[in-house]
Amino acid sequence: MRMFRNDYSEGAAPEILEALVSTNAEQHVGYTEGDPYCERARELIRAACGRDDVDVEFCIGGTSANIVGVTGMLRDWEGVICTRDGHINVHETGAIAACGRTVLPTRDADGFLSVEEAERVFTFQTGTGRHMTRPAAIYISNTTELGGVWSRARFDAICDWAESRGLKVFLDGARLGSALTSPAADGLTLEHIAARASAFYIGGTKNGMLFGEAMVIADPALKEAFGYLVKERGGLMAKGRLLGVQFARAFVPEADGEVLYWKLARGANECAFKLRAGLVELGFEPAGDAPSNQQFFLFEPKVAAAFAETAGCEIFEYLPDGRALTRFVCSWATKPADVDELLAFAATL
Amino acid sequence: MRMFRNDYSEGAAPEILEALVSTNAEQHVGYTEGDPYCERARELIRAACGRDDVDVEFCIGGTSANIVGVTGMLRDWEGVICTRDGHINVHETGAIAACGRTVLPTRDADGFLSVEEAERVFTFQTGTGRHMTRPAAIYISNTTELGGVWSRARFDAICDWAESRGLKVFLDGARLGSALTSPAADGLTLEHIAARASAFYIGGTKNGMLFGEAMVIADPALKEAFGYLVKERGGLMAKGRLLGVQFARAFVPEADGEVLYWKLARGANECAFKLRAGLVELGFEPAGDAPSNQQFFLFEPKVAAAFAETAGCEIFEYLPDGRALTRFVCSWATKPADVDELLAFAATL
Amino acid sequence: MRMFRNDYSEGAAPEILEALVSTNAEQHVGYTEGDPYCERARELIRAACGRDDVDVEFCIGGTSANIVGVTGMLRDWEGVICTRDGHINVHETGAIAACGRTVLPTRDADGFLSVEEAERVFTFQTGTGRHMTRPAAIYISNTTELGGVWSRARFDAICDWAESRGLKVFLDGARLGSALTSPAADGLTLEHIAARASAFYIGGTKNGMLFGEAMVIADPALKEAFGYLVKERGGLMAKGRLLGVQFARAFVPEADGEVLYWKLARGANECAFKLRAGLVELGFEPAGDAPSNQQFFLFEPKVAAAFAETAGCEIFEYLPDGRALTRFVCSWATKPADVDELLAFAATL
Amino acid sequence: MRMFRNDYSEGAAPEILEALVSTNAEQHVGYTEGDPYCERARELIRAACGRDDVDVEFCIGGTSANIVGVTGMLRDWEGVICTRDGHINVHETGAIAACGRTVLPTRDADGFLSVEEAERVFTFQTGTGRHMTRPAAIYISNTTELGGVWSRARFDAICDWAESRGLKVFLDGARLGSALTSPAADGLTLEHIAARASAFYIGGTKNGMLFGEAMVIADPALKEAFGYLVKERGGLMAKGRLLGVQFARAFVPEADGEVLYWKLARGANECAFKLRAGLVELGFEPAGDAPSNQQFFLFEPKVAAAFAETAGCEIFEYLPDGRALTRFVCSWATKPADVDELLAFAATL
Repeated sequence: MRMFRNDYSEGAAPEILEALVSTNAEQHVGYTEGDPYCERARELIRAACGRDDVDVEFCIGGTSANIVGVTGMLRDWEGVICTRDGHINVHETGAIAACGRTVLPTRDADGFLSVEEAERVFTFQTGTGRHMTRPAAIYISNTTELGGVWSRARFDAICDWAESRGLKVFLDGARLGSALTSPAADGLTLEHIAARASAFYIGGTKNGMLFGEAMVIADPALKEAFGYLVKERGGLMAKGRLLGVQFARAFVPEADGEVLYWKLARGANECAFKLRAGLVELGFEPAGDAPSNQQFFLFEPKVAAAFAETAGCEIFEYLPDGRALTRFVCSWATKPADVDELLAFAATL
Repeated sequence: MRMFRNDYSEGAAPEILEALVSTNAEQHVGYTEGDPYCERARELIRAACGRDDVDVEFCIGGTSANIVGVTGMLRDWEGVICTRDGHINVHETGAIAACGRTVLPTRDADGFLSVEEAERVFTFQTGTGRHMTRPAAIYISNTTELGGVWSRARFDAICDWAESRGLKVFLDGARLGSALTSPAADGLTLEHIAARASAFYIGGTKNGMLFGEAMVIADPALKEAFGYLVKERGGLMAKGRLLGVQFARAFVPEADGEVLYWKLARGANECAFKLRAGLVELGFEPAGDAPSNQQFFLFEPKVAAAFAETAGCEIFEYLPDGRALTRFVCSWATKPADVDELLAFAATL
Repeated sequence: MRMFRNDYSEGAAPEILEALVSTNAEQHVGYTEGDPYCERARELIRAACGRDDVDVEFCIGGTSANIVGVTGMLRDWEGVICTRDGHINVHETGAIAACGRTVLPTRDADGFLSVEEAERVFTFQTGTGRHMTRPAAIYISNTTELGGVWSRARFDAICDWAESRGLKVFLDGARLGSALTSPAADGLTLEHIAARASAFYIGGTKNGMLFGEAMVIADPALKEAFGYLVKERGGLMAKGRLLGVQFARAFVPEADGEVLYWKLARGANECAFKLRAGLVELGFEPAGDAPSNQQFFLFEPKVAAAFAETAGCEIFEYLPDGRALTRFVCSWATKPADVDELLAFAATL
Repeated sequence: MRMFRNDYSEGAAPEILEALVSTNAEQHVGYTEGDPYCERARELIRAACGRDDVDVEFCIGGTSANIVGVTGMLRDWEGVICTRDGHINVHETGAIAACGRTVLPTRDADGFLSVEEAERVFTFQTGTGRHMTRPAAIYISNTTELGGVWSRARFDAICDWAESRGLKVFLDGARLGSALTSPAADGLTLEHIAARASAFYIGGTKNGMLFGEAMVIADPALKEAFGYLVKERGGLMAKGRLLGVQFARAFVPEADGEVLYWKLARGANECAFKLRAGLVELGFEPAGDAPSNQQFFLFEPKVAAAFAETAGCEIFEYLPDGRALTRFVCSWATKPADVDELLAFAATL
């Protein structure tokens, strides 16, 4: 059975792989600086963002992109506000602190940074001048750690607040494809993010690329920093064109006028929604309303264990009542038939 | 004409690419932790090193590997001794300082760290106790920045000295393939390096992989550090198996009993030697005796410019006498016919 | 009226000042390395600790001592567990992150690090190997941020736990004098701390010195680190003997066999207890049972404002019910008559 | 006999000490923020600088001030150009690297940063864009490590160059008193430094204070950074008024219209000049023309050893010809009679 463990379990989408294979023998200059594929990918991404004045840097992975993005916005004594379950707060081995900056977590429990909590942290941290880390940026991710999707209204509200406080906005878009093709995006588009965020990245690793993330830098004050940090922090690829080739393929309009990047994401979402509906129909209880390619369910331990063994699901935690919070992830590689197979198995539990 | 600009101008060697393509659809766990390809690559590399007690971590690139390797050997107040042209001293945007550690350059001008200079720096730095950065490791690269190859005797001499001073030994092997298949290696083998260095890496990016370096950690005291640092510094790949697939392919014995990794390197060297001999025969003056895949020549500016334009050579610097120090690099992708074409062009200058 | 704002509002205790004045013209070598006063102070502190095998380093202030102490215990990817109101978590402008290390706060709300919460954080942080910051030390302060005093039993419990988890123990003793002369110490002594903590410091700034903290390093594995870090982090004083002179004076047995350091602390405590009793008698409501030189009360805003204006008290926060959490601090310089004056004023409110 | 070892061998000048003693019992708010002495000292220093728009921060010592000053001028990927013997390059245990920034040493051998060498380093470092540390500031010290004094013309030349390259200028003034009261200053004044440097500090520790340095921040873009960094890097003193009291006393015009700070420095210089003249008259050979409170001589080893033993001189190094480079330092505490005694001793060698 296909695993529903993660969206980085497979290699690349066939179209992306084909692009890499067909250009493999070409010779190009290195470091994403000047080869035609990186240039083309930059153009296409700028077009998709509806802005020709943004910089685009290519990063080799998510932690690397978060290091560049977050620390590039902060001076030594400044911090970034994020939710307590933010990836940079929990799952990156102190990568932000390793670069000398402070993460300032809120108490938000649903994965969304709320204006209320952000304001509380901001007020607390700025109450005694230089005796405390000064907030200078917010970090949000779309989708959130829990598979949540930012609506346009919600995104605008946190951006408005950040703007009012003079904070920069960084959006971790490791799963941006799934987020923006979700019905829950409710008007939030790539153009709109590019119009409001100081910087963000378009995740490739989890949406059909072999690897790679495209960092979009909208705030002119950040451009030099991001360029240097990609290199200094070890995230600049010698064979930079590999990133260009993949993103150029993912963002070039296809025959039907749409680009592969969104198609792949939509496919993952559709499988996830089908999976959710099927499990609900079988009487299982979903956790939250995550409208993206990650689906969370609450199972009896035995059932969770069965899903984990057979479908590679991850059990996130055991609730006080004993039930197991379990995650299913669909990717661009998941097919409706894979979901059917899973549901057939689920029906036996 | 094929470019002789660098050994990371192309994608991957066909065999490596084929391995990636043929395993692309498989699903595996991430982060190089537990997938069969990474496990297999580790076994093969351990075998090639003649030690089953070394750890192997996979890094996404050279700067990332140097960050992990060098800073993983140093405590906050310690420094690494290297030559003044060492990659970490010059070409990595202060990546070591960015991690809070100090590079202590010697005055060695030929790319090889000498016992004499290392001792001079060591003595100077330890003369006033805690008032100066304490040397704790040496950094050498094989091949050197200038294409030099460490012989076994030279390598043993610097290791003996380091051992006598209690310093760890890190070897940057971005071009280790070219170095160990060079006649100038003179008995230096992978097994011998694994027996004496505290840690080193086997470069993939510049020897036929799409990307990736395999870090071998021999000193047990470093194993935990390296494992964590790969993640914390942003160098751990989500689709870790990509690294395993490549290194497993590169180090599995082929039908003739030899492994691809050395074959690719030998091919690059042979082209480089042919190129050197041909240019010398044409009356051009080589700079140094670099017996590896990089060849340096001193040209009149016009000639250098012609090579730069037509063959993508890099001009490193202009000497006081006006001549241009120019570099040709051959890779696994260079064919003898490519060298012939270059030499034919050279004959017209 | 004397201010009850802080215990660093005045200069030095007269005896300490006199020691500085009387030795002022002497010439000594610098950096706390080899002058007779630092040597003497080290001996006296070792004697007071009941161990002749501990190292003693002199730091110029509390933040500096915390930087040395905490980061000296952690490797790059390790973190320190402390309460959420821990000084290093809140009031030091990200000083620990600035050194590349992570603070891992618990949810303890009373200033004491509990075994339960520490275990919860430890378990969480070690659940996914290198993907999360690894706890390697705990940070506690005595007295706590809220004026609490560690009893011997409570201290032993957290040390036992830390030992069982392989964590080092750092104790911030900025107000250690007040803590160990409090009845609430309940058997906790300097000797006992020296026997169990990996390292801790004896605060001078807040107990009668002009400035300075004496760091006691018991764990042999930390000695070299602490020595270097004091210098590297900017905390090594050129005129190091100033620290030796002060601590030698504070820890030399006086005619009555007791040392000044404890006498000064006891004086501060006694004034604080008198102040507390007096305010309680006047009907005011104390917050918590802080048995040390800091006393917290809950006042109506108007009353708090009057105390703040007249006695320099700090208002920490306004509770949801509108009352103001207000702090009075007594120091070695506070006299019983000062407390009487304050109480007389309080009686008019 | 009085030691000529260093200018931080004694405590404070009597006038400074008296100011500390007479204000000792006063209560003031902490952290140099709002007490009348710090405010007064700031006013007096601004007046001495001829600018009322500079910020003044008080630091606890030289390394701490250099950390704040240098790293406050640099972003993560930027470096500071200084001479190879610059204090930050050699004698501060990698303190700048510990803060993540890179020191870029020139080959200048005489302690003065030359335009030629600075330009060479700048050109080299900016040749390949983000692949190398970008120079963003220069660090000079006055007096230099070797006791040299910057003339106005020399200072203007390096400032002009730095300006032309867009670099900030940091001046380490640990011995600024000696430098500006030297005849070799040749028109260089505090006002002029304040007019041209981005930031600099007025050294207290080596010119009669018990401790402390006054950082003058002229560039508005640096003010916030320096304020926060003093705290974050552990250099903010709780009893901040101690610094204010000392600098206010040192910079308040005395009855004769002059301020103590310059008087103390002039006294040290005069003793040093007398010492130099006397030793030269006795036939000893000076090294360099250091026109400040440090004097260097070349002695036969036996003579050097005699001076080291009797007068506490430091032997810096042994030249290839066997002679010992030996340093005498006079301080504000040195009296002409002390020099006479030394010369009488010298006459016996």
